[in-house]
Amino acid sequence: VARVIDPGDIAKDFRKQVAQQVAKLTVPLKLVGFLSADNAPSQTYANYTKAGCDDVGIQYELRQVNKLALAAAIDEANADPAVHGIMVYYPIFATDQDAYIKDLVDHRKDIEGLNSYWVRMLYHNQRYVDAAKSKQALLPCTPLAVIKLLEAAGALRRSKADHGVPLQGQTVVIFNRSEVVGRPLASMLANDGANVYSFDIDGPQLFRSGQVSEFKITRAEALSQADIVITGVPSREFPLVHCAEIRPGAVCLNFSTLRNFVPEIGDVAGVFIPRVGPMTVAMALRNTLRLFENYHA
Amino acid sequence: VARVIDPGDIAKDFRKQVAQQVAKLTVPLKLVGFLSADNAPSQTYANYTKAGCDDVGIQYELRQVNKLALAAAIDEANADPAVHGIMVYYPIFATDQDAYIKDLVDHRKDIEGLNSYWVRMLYHNQRYVDAAKSKQALLPCTPLAVIKLLEAAGALRRSKADHGVPLQGQTVVIFNRSEVVGRPLASMLANDGANVYSFDIDGPQLFRSGQVSEFKITRAEALSQADIVITGVPSREFPLVHCAEIRPGAVCLNFSTLRNFVPEIGDVAGVFIPRVGPMTVAMALRNTLRLFENYHA
Repeated sequence: VARVIDPGDIAKDFRKQVAQQVAKLTVPLKLVGFLSADNAPSQTYANYTKAGCDDVGIQYELRQVNKLALAAAIDEANADPAVHGIMVYYPIFATDQDAYIKDLVDHRKDIEGLNSYWVRMLYHNQRYVDAAKSKQALLPCTPLAVIKLLEAAGALRRSKADHGVPLQGQTVVIFNRSEVVGRPLASMLANDGANVYSFDIDGPQLFRSGQVSEFKITRAEALSQADIVITGVPSREFPLVHCAEIRPGAVCLNFSTLRNFVPEIGDVAGVFIPRVGPMTVAMALRNTLRLFENYHA
Repeated sequence: VARVIDPGDIAKDFRKQVAQQVAKLTVPLKLVGFLSADNAPSQTYANYTKAGCDDVGIQYELRQVNKLALAAAIDEANADPAVHGIMVYYPIFATDQDAYIKDLVDHRKDIEGLNSYWVRMLYHNQRYVDAAKSKQALLPCTPLAVIKLLEAAGALRRSKADHGVPLQGQTVVIFNRSEVVGRPLASMLANDGANVYSFDIDGPQLFRSGQVSEFKITRAEALSQADIVITGVPSREFPLVHCAEIRPGAVCLNFSTLRNFVPEIGDVAGVFIPRVGPMTVAMALRNTLRLFENYHA
């Protein structure tokens, strides 16, 4: 029977580490959230961010502004030295205009890693912002949360001997290739040495060593090879991943809010991680601290 | 009866100016176009770009690359000192991934002005890239083409006495608020002093002096006040702007490939500009020269 990892437990460990670092700071660390759309999931995420900030000692201020006033409000927060991190709850316009907002947040305060400055670094596998390699680049919260959970599951062999590719020789299957999670996650896992089969409605792609290509492989073939199976399909049309499809002992992780594995998956999986949510918030807090250390300390 | 402006005539004048400047350069000015989707309008646009480049003496090279190889191909062109301008024919993925590609093009070679570096400057009305105000910021081709055509129509009072707001006191109506044309154009016209009523399916907004707000006004009310009427609606559902709706003498311009005004509009308009296409290409050539002068000369 699979070991089930509760992301809440791992998140608690990360929050504890962040809290210890925050306690050492001599100025109050401040994160501002912007809520501009009447959207229940965004409000929920804002509530979780506040609870996380309260837990680790980061000041959190939620600013609810009309979406047409959001750009000016972000400019103001960018310019305010008392604000160290900015978080915007998407979608706002739910059009290409959201991409403009993402790039408007100063990358030095963009704790979500959505500014094209960070996105470019991610896809180019540039891990440090400085030549001395003292300041790590920022990674987006949910993909980072997934990787930290895989690490907690023992799927990454982190060591001095891993040569920076702790997933060397591992095969990963991801169902989701969104710009927010699936594509950056596939790239990050490939940067860590894995062969990643990325599935979405446009068909499978192989991410390997900084290269991406279309790749003819069926879901059944890919799953039969996978050491790690990651799902993030927000649709009830998706055929749930069932026990006979996966390798016994595979690590299975779902980041969708819908169930993407059959409930019995734990009978075959080695580790099952049914959700990611609390770890996404923990990574947002960790990123806030990292940006402070990189740019504002 | 309205004066009808053929954008081809104005474009010819601009191409002549560009050709004169290009002839003075001591190195060949080179523009690379990237075509990655099997899309007839993109191929047509590429053909027009090549014809325009041939006309003004810019070297044009079309690179047809698989869309999954496009990012690496752009990286290579960014790094190649022999390439001065880059143009990408969109859509490619037709998802948020296209925004990643737009930001991947080095802003110093981004002749379309789509990189967030240029977009941010546009919305902040920052007109120069240097403190000495010797290097003008880049503006996106179609909105710039529209403004140059309005200038040719006599709608902008360019003079030393215009205080940088040559549209002061003018009212503009635009039907289109896309991120590619309608929204930047509304902002640029407002930066030039106009009151701009921007209409799209989400309702009207008022752009004025760097501010944008929702504004309750009907199409009829807005059109009855407009000195300039700009249409760019790619839908046959759009009720054509008819003669009784506009002010006699108004400047009317359509940048959609579909007709958006009734054919009789010329009986009432002061100037009618039925299309923009050739001027968009001319502005792409002009932008190539500008980036060369700003960054590569």
